[in-house]
Amino acid sequence: MSSLASRILKGDRRAVARLIRDIDDRMPSAREELKALYPHTGNAHIIGLTGAPGSGKSSLTDQLIAAFRQRGQTVGVLAVDPSSPFTGGAILGDRIRMQQHTLDKGVFIRSMATRGHLGGLTRSTRDAARVLDAFGVDIILIETVGVGQDEVDIVKQADTTLVIAVPGLGDEVQAIKAGVLEIGDIFVVNKSDLPGARKAKRDLEMMLDLRPRPADAWHPPVLQSIATQSEGIEQILTYTDKHVEHIREHDGHKHKRERLHEEFFVLLKGILHDQLESLLQSPTHSASFFEALEQEAQDPMTLAEQFIERYVSFHHTPNQQ
Amino acid sequence: MSSLASRILKGDRRAVARLIRDIDDRMPSAREELKALYPHTGNAHIIGLTGAPGSGKSSLTDQLIAAFRQRGQTVGVLAVDPSSPFTGGAILGDRIRMQQHTLDKGVFIRSMATRGHLGGLTRSTRDAARVLDAFGVDIILIETVGVGQDEVDIVKQADTTLVIAVPGLGDEVQAIKAGVLEIGDIFVVNKSDLPGARKAKRDLEMMLDLRPRPADAWHPPVLQSIATQSEGIEQILTYTDKHVEHIREHDGHKHKRERLHEEFFVLLKGILHDQLESLLQSPTHSASFFEALEQEAQDPMTLAEQFIERYVSFHHTPNQQ
Repeated sequence: MSSLASRILKGDRRAVARLIRDIDDRMPSAREELKALYPHTGNAHIIGLTGAPGSGKSSLTDQLIAAFRQRGQTVGVLAVDPSSPFTGGAILGDRIRMQQHTLDKGVFIRSMATRGHLGGLTRSTRDAARVLDAFGVDIILIETVGVGQDEVDIVKQADTTLVIAVPGLGDEVQAIKAGVLEIGDIFVVNKSDLPGARKAKRDLEMMLDLRPRPADAWHPPVLQSIATQSEGIEQILTYTDKHVEHIREHDGHKHKRERLHEEFFVLLKGILHDQLESLLQSPTHSASFFEALEQEAQDPMTLAEQFIERYVSFHHTPNQQ
Repeated sequence: MSSLASRILKGDRRAVARLIRDIDDRMPSAREELKALYPHTGNAHIIGLTGAPGSGKSSLTDQLIAAFRQRGQTVGVLAVDPSSPFTGGAILGDRIRMQQHTLDKGVFIRSMATRGHLGGLTRSTRDAARVLDAFGVDIILIETVGVGQDEVDIVKQADTTLVIAVPGLGDEVQAIKAGVLEIGDIFVVNKSDLPGARKAKRDLEMMLDLRPRPADAWHPPVLQSIATQSEGIEQILTYTDKHVEHIREHDGHKHKRERLHEEFFVLLKGILHDQLESLLQSPTHSASFFEALEQEAQDPMTLAEQFIERYVSFHHTPNQQ
């Protein structure tokens, strides 16, 4: 077994940090390390946490970490939110506040870089979650801003998804995109001491009631919290527990299959993306196309088709079935 | 020439709406129509407009449309913001307010669906902009929420990018992600009647000053506006004009080349994505892989590599150079 993977399985935190960084940097070696870790994954409960900027998502994450720790569970946090205190968009006060957890060996916090690779973030976040899973954390919190397609795709990989709403920030913020409404397993109206909290809760419940749902399906609850005062946190944990139990009893196989298929698709796209990038970065392959593009010798769509035709073959009828 | 394209070139609005819907639905016929339209594009000024929910982005778009119309320019709007009044997340009041423009033949408003295809939105928005360009509008406004990678990629395709900030919504919202700071050509602190407006402006100017920039490069201004009172709109137009002029005088060729390369990459990924999806949807191709995946006979990464190996060949050394 390769060295980083074996160190991670032995509980080496620095090896975890190193492999996640290698994943972020798309080092080819990271793929081999991940392969070695896969058999040791599948035990963590992955919780996606998403909400618009200003919803108090980070304070809530903070409180959830503390609550899981009190129950004796270890927690990994992957922050893919540019406005999160864990990431580059951080402000100093929040960063300091979070340090209580970074000193706790039962908590591993890592922010995922947004390097501008379309879809790359979905892949690297999933891979990083696999690393934390193999490392042995009980709970993995993935925190994203719930407004981009990328973020929705990231959260799709979670077992349980919390959608954080907030009262009084104006209707524009309240207008939760349909995709997010679909992926939410638990909705939380945070900052419930603000005016309009009950209305926000009712509105969400109404929107959820409008969605057709089989009788034995999970019915997403709408909870209330005030993260800054540690209010409502226990109830969120109660419902994440209930949700895990529901998955186990009702559609554990389907749930697992859907996430595996999603991950497989993300991995496939990642390989194609890398191959395409290396073709484009090689002038012998791309120069004539870029020239034709810039001189408008041909339209971009036709050139793209010709490029794929020349360099990529799809075998829709393989030898073996 | 195919029928929708020729109708669009003759000024048929319904054909524009129809082709954009076909693009959204990924109809294969749309590709041929687009090819016919390409030679007639390249004249519109594409303006990207991005900002967090609650920044008053939609009111600002509204005011900008009115201002461009007053100058006698025609305007196309593509809204890819789930919280925008143009899209599904709409609230009735805003929707009604916008109808003044929908009755104006010089304005074409279209919201882009977010159908859950990763990266698909970037592609369809670029294609829709091409359609509006061929249709002959002078200005194309692309409105997105500036927090997802997808949104950043969409805005990258614009000639001029406006980033909308807002005072007093808390530091969390103010923390503008590095990617957005990089792509902004003009920054606007909207809702400048709120406390903290001057501080927000100063903070942004400071952040922008920290970025290294060649002497003759465009220096992004930080403007102030109160969209609901039509204040500061003229100044935004003055600076978008200045920016267009700057591009023309300084780096017109580079500017165009970068956008063409970006579009080419998006088109290539789109073709690969479609091919991959059709392979996965065919059980003869994917069933054995899904089975191995679910039975954990092999790790997902290895299976993904095997899948690509079996069905896709990359020709890194083509016959001709």
